[in-house]
Amino acid sequence: MSIEHDHSPLYTKVEAALVSDISAGFLTPGSQLPPEDGLIKRFSVSRTTVRKAVENLVARGLVEIRRGKGTFVAQPKITQELTELTGFVEDMQALGRTPTARLLDKQIVPADTGVARRLAVPSGTLVMRIQRVRLADGIAMSFDETYLPCEIGEKVVTHDLEAEPIFSLLEGKYDLPLTDAEYRLEAVTATPDVAQALAVDPGSAVFLIERTSYTEGHRPIDYEKLHYRGDLISFVTRLARRSREHS
Amino acid sequence: MSIEHDHSPLYTKVEAALVSDISAGFLTPGSQLPPEDGLIKRFSVSRTTVRKAVENLVARGLVEIRRGKGTFVAQPKITQELTELTGFVEDMQALGRTPTARLLDKQIVPADTGVARRLAVPSGTLVMRIQRVRLADGIAMSFDETYLPCEIGEKVVTHDLEAEPIFSLLEGKYDLPLTDAEYRLEAVTATPDVAQALAVDPGSAVFLIERTSYTEGHRPIDYEKLHYRGDLISFVTRLARRSREHS
Repeated sequence: MSIEHDHSPLYTKVEAALVSDISAGFLTPGSQLPPEDGLIKRFSVSRTTVRKAVENLVARGLVEIRRGKGTFVAQPKITQELTELTGFVEDMQALGRTPTARLLDKQIVPADTGVARRLAVPSGTLVMRIQRVRLADGIAMSFDETYLPCEIGEKVVTHDLEAEPIFSLLEGKYDLPLTDAEYRLEAVTATPDVAQALAVDPGSAVFLIERTSYTEGHRPIDYEKLHYRGDLISFVTRLARRSREHS
Repeated sequence: MSIEHDHSPLYTKVEAALVSDISAGFLTPGSQLPPEDGLIKRFSVSRTTVRKAVENLVARGLVEIRRGKGTFVAQPKITQELTELTGFVEDMQALGRTPTARLLDKQIVPADTGVARRLAVPSGTLVMRIQRVRLADGIAMSFDETYLPCEIGEKVVTHDLEAEPIFSLLEGKYDLPLTDAEYRLEAVTATPDVAQALAVDPGSAVFLIERTSYTEGHRPIDYEKLHYRGDLISFVTRLARRSREHS
């Protein structure tokens, strides 16, 4: 390995070499980083330099320290656009991933006040609740709870919900084109239920999206609580500065 | 207290009564919920009903269980629009909160590869790093790390950064109008450093925003890592379905 003689600090060169190993596939996601002593020898640098390089890789999310086990190459986070209303299947297909779903439960439940408010029905109204785990390339990415008004929910659940996206059913089968959606984004930690569904430790970071999707006439038709694994996903968007006239 | 005889389940009535107590201010943020036995007596309902009502309040984020201590009325989360590029001071003022800042550190550091990429400089280039805790009504909301190109950073740090927002300095003093920004949103857990800055437990949920703001000519001028307390903030936006021509 050759470290060029430019003016950047030594640790950024070590860091860059390790990034190169990761992106070239010499170090694969989930594999353990070589031990500190090995890196010191390989790069002919001090322990401090190796540590600083590894710290930077941790800060960049490229490697992760598993307490008591060592340092491992992280699974790269999926970067998903947050710019228009899209469903999980559309999102994963756009990223070249294969989406699948595991149906956990479908049942009619009384709307609690939160669900009722989102679907614009009185509290306690019966609604359809569908619980699924959504997977990308076989890895559980999100635990989704979908609430639908009962009349449409009863039709939707007659389909194979492991194969057919709910958005496709609403728009394609039931002539309920989606127009837009309200999103609420939060960072939370996994409750035991969510942790179990996602096969992560309770207390893991969860990116929670509450989404109310509307059909024509500004009618709420689908309220979802999407619990994404925080370690597997990031969302990106671009926002403009308000026009200077209004500032 | 009168529970009307409609058809919603009993627990949603108990839940609604407690929500009403919270919104009317009889139960204030941070105060303990009355004990289970008291609620059973007050509403003449079963323990199961009280528990289901409280579970719903927890799920809605209105109350929180502190292990070994009891159930408390949660601080209401700040709901912040994520629709245009705004700074912390602008955001809090729009919400009627008083923003303040605590400067932790300002120093020139070599850009790691992540910072370098965002500011479009070679890795190892010296940049200004400013670390602040941002508060709303005296409560620490966010730990912010701001990276600026050195030449502008050296000017910015001559100002009182506890009083003057960096966006105002860039736009008002240094004629660097912001045009737009790239956002990356993630859910993470607080590292020990971030936890200390925010006075929360390590492992608490953190809403991490990485934001690169641009000035005219698509020149990146300000890269920030904003670590928001997950229990205090939620972000909202509205997204449209893509036009049907393209679907």
